[in-house]
Amino acid sequence: MNIDQLFESAQEAFLFYKNLSGKEKGAFLETLAEILESHRAEIVPLAVKESNLPEGRINGELGRTTGQIKLFANLVKEGSWVEATVDPADPGRQPLPKADIRRMLTPLGPVVVFGASNFPLAFSTAGGDTISALAAGCPVIYKAHPAHPETSKKVAECIAEAITKSGLPSGIFTHVEGGIDVGQALVKHPLAKAVGFTGSHAGGKALFDLAGQREEPIPVYAEMGSVNPIFCFPEKLEKNNDVLAKAFISSLTLGVGQFCTNPGLIFVPKTQAKDFEKAIAEELNDIASAPMLHPGIAQAYYDSIQFFQSREELRWVKVADPQHLINGSTALAEIQAADWIKDKVFQKEVFGAFAMMVVYETEEELLEIVKNLHGQLTITVWAEDSELKDQLFLLNLLEEKCGRLLFKGVPTGVEVGFAMQHGGPYPSTTAPNSTSVGAHAIKRFARPIALQDMPQELLPDALKDGNPLGIWRLVNGAYTK
Amino acid sequence: MNIDQLFESAQEAFLFYKNLSGKEKGAFLETLAEILESHRAEIVPLAVKESNLPEGRINGELGRTTGQIKLFANLVKEGSWVEATVDPADPGRQPLPKADIRRMLTPLGPVVVFGASNFPLAFSTAGGDTISALAAGCPVIYKAHPAHPETSKKVAECIAEAITKSGLPSGIFTHVEGGIDVGQALVKHPLAKAVGFTGSHAGGKALFDLAGQREEPIPVYAEMGSVNPIFCFPEKLEKNNDVLAKAFISSLTLGVGQFCTNPGLIFVPKTQAKDFEKAIAEELNDIASAPMLHPGIAQAYYDSIQFFQSREELRWVKVADPQHLINGSTALAEIQAADWIKDKVFQKEVFGAFAMMVVYETEEELLEIVKNLHGQLTITVWAEDSELKDQLFLLNLLEEKCGRLLFKGVPTGVEVGFAMQHGGPYPSTTAPNSTSVGAHAIKRFARPIALQDMPQELLPDALKDGNPLGIWRLVNGAYTK
Repeated sequence: MNIDQLFESAQEAFLFYKNLSGKEKGAFLETLAEILESHRAEIVPLAVKESNLPEGRINGELGRTTGQIKLFANLVKEGSWVEATVDPADPGRQPLPKADIRRMLTPLGPVVVFGASNFPLAFSTAGGDTISALAAGCPVIYKAHPAHPETSKKVAECIAEAITKSGLPSGIFTHVEGGIDVGQALVKHPLAKAVGFTGSHAGGKALFDLAGQREEPIPVYAEMGSVNPIFCFPEKLEKNNDVLAKAFISSLTLGVGQFCTNPGLIFVPKTQAKDFEKAIAEELNDIASAPMLHPGIAQAYYDSIQFFQSREELRWVKVADPQHLINGSTALAEIQAADWIKDKVFQKEVFGAFAMMVVYETEEELLEIVKNLHGQLTITVWAEDSELKDQLFLLNLLEEKCGRLLFKGVPTGVEVGFAMQHGGPYPSTTAPNSTSVGAHAIKRFARPIALQDMPQELLPDALKDGNPLGIWRLVNGAYTK
Repeated sequence: MNIDQLFESAQEAFLFYKNLSGKEKGAFLETLAEILESHRAEIVPLAVKESNLPEGRINGELGRTTGQIKLFANLVKEGSWVEATVDPADPGRQPLPKADIRRMLTPLGPVVVFGASNFPLAFSTAGGDTISALAAGCPVIYKAHPAHPETSKKVAECIAEAITKSGLPSGIFTHVEGGIDVGQALVKHPLAKAVGFTGSHAGGKALFDLAGQREEPIPVYAEMGSVNPIFCFPEKLEKNNDVLAKAFISSLTLGVGQFCTNPGLIFVPKTQAKDFEKAIAEELNDIASAPMLHPGIAQAYYDSIQFFQSREELRWVKVADPQHLINGSTALAEIQAADWIKDKVFQKEVFGAFAMMVVYETEEELLEIVKNLHGQLTITVWAEDSELKDQLFLLNLLEEKCGRLLFKGVPTGVEVGFAMQHGGPYPSTTAPNSTSVGAHAIKRFARPIALQDMPQELLPDALKDGNPLGIWRLVNGAYTK
């Protein structure tokens, strides 16, 4: 099947699929979750082999994947996500009668999805982008990630099985293999209506530019990662030095540091720097090297470390050991805030278990740091409540710079729920007004449409009088079921 | 004040202004509405002189402007627009405790707004874009439209007066005059976080490209107009020939055809074409020429007519009379569907009271027409209910192509409410997932932020336990006050 044919098939499927009820779409997604679960014994070994991730992690990730599928199944079965809004007619209004206007979200059309290397299941073939697009009512053209081709093919087979079993047109999901040229051709195709991407900044930015240059520009939801800074306040650190050192290092090194939310940057007050450095150095000693996702990623990791080793502003607490190129060993360097502020290169994301500890002295320096900070997925503040009392200005600046601001715990471990925001100002994503994790992710693949004076029998159920779906609707400005 | 200084002043004002309560922002907007009203006697003559629009229309437009300001004032005073969402903590969850995550919309930062020539008040200096950005909590840098400089300056003075009277920093609104180079410099400035624009396709697309090429790309909400097709079905037309002809012509020629929703394209079945053409020709005779907004717009109108006159596919029912170049006289041409489909040039928007009547013969032709249609702000369907019964496929295709689908009345007259969607697929806008009219317009200038385990006393009131603002919130997936 060539690219034109697959998009035509997707478009044809779309005009059928978008009319399914939420219950039907939900049932299809539930079938998919069951089928994936029933193929666990085949999927897990493939993913382990292709990603170098341990079996326990992959088993957990499959659970996260099917859990996510069920969340979106429930979301569309319940149905309120369409933001149904009814402004009733007022024929008697002066000077002009008021029309009946009803608004809801409608799916965009065929969506191109690029999976992530670091989540061969949860952010790949049947991952968050694919599932939220399918849940919204959009067919998906999925470009397989070259780092885990067999896993991707197997999961695609499961999706095809679910489609057949549910009696849906095969065009709602297409699995495409190929190089960068194939990915570009997919994004450029006139029938593509949106792009989902999780991966490197270079990759995401290239797709964003390509999509903007089309005759019809389309949105690119690229989640490109960030360094997820942690800001430590003196009293908090003084009281919890060892506990926080442990929390930081375990978040940094989780999955060999291959998470988009792992904290690669930590700001520590000078008064506590020595104690904290000692504690994290000890923690680092306990972390064994482990294989990275694939040799290319390990190579890029060591190249970045080497690049930073040429910078004299950095003092190395631990240098990564490129003994076996597949292994990502941990690394940590220290830098003074004044030096860090001077050059934005120190904000470069290093994908892997490397962190920079920035030592600051004054609150003025802290403000200057935040002003210079790039957009981030997350920022974490470790402070005693009393230390934040007069910090409204700083907190405001921090909010400007991220999609999620944490006051406890660590940024890794992204909860899948209604309030999650996994997306932040550029360059962490190309679409800060969207999230790629949680219920709101579905909204990336829909747009509002207003239906004015549409006959009742033609209206979608979500907008009909009497609310036959029993969903939450905004009627005359108030929420009602 | 140079551009750097004005953005620094806006950014500084932002960090103050974003922390105002909805009540305070609402009070400021109400003060602004009052001040505009109190200067009506000065504003109206200026706008009449600079726009050539009649006094009655401008008086009405000022009412629409202050009405819109009050709508956004009420919206932010009520407060639910921030989409407050609370996923409470669950410390006992297995295998890992669940954090407390709360999400709401937060303003983006300084916004650059370009006003429209055709609404010197309602879509200009204190128009929808400016007011929805201010309501969201964003400072506005407003680039004055060269077609009505004095009106713009006067309204800007009113805004400054409202700012002073409300004790707010002057940086929340800046009025900038200048040419295209100044507009480009504003969009390129690193502190600009979004752009609002209403105007031509060329202008909107240029800003969209410019904003995408910035080091930090920013969203451009450009409403670039469309031809707003009307689809007539045979039975409906047969029964209502004269009434619909009258409705069509009065919508087409309203404000000398200078509305972004005026219907420049009407599809008529061959069986009814003769009768309908006769009726609209008669209606056209009753429409007097009237001055357009400015000579440049009239020139462009006649240039477009002249361009189309060179196309032999068109048969002219009425040719515009360029007797006085400032006057926009009506024009109408007829074309067969088969010819219309062949060349997308026939979809070009002509800003003014020109329409193309496309004669179609079969339902297959109708489908082909819709498949070839560009994205539109609105599409109108005039059909008997019985004629739409088996037209689900066609209706689906129509939904793909517009932001608002009407089944009665005419597309001009855009209601300002919760369900309004004034925005459609490209090229009608650069952001089909947003609206530039109605309550949702505020959301263009905000993005979600998640606050994880934030101490209660630091949380914004919208997210505090006990819901002190009494707003609609999504708590654990259900709406509650």
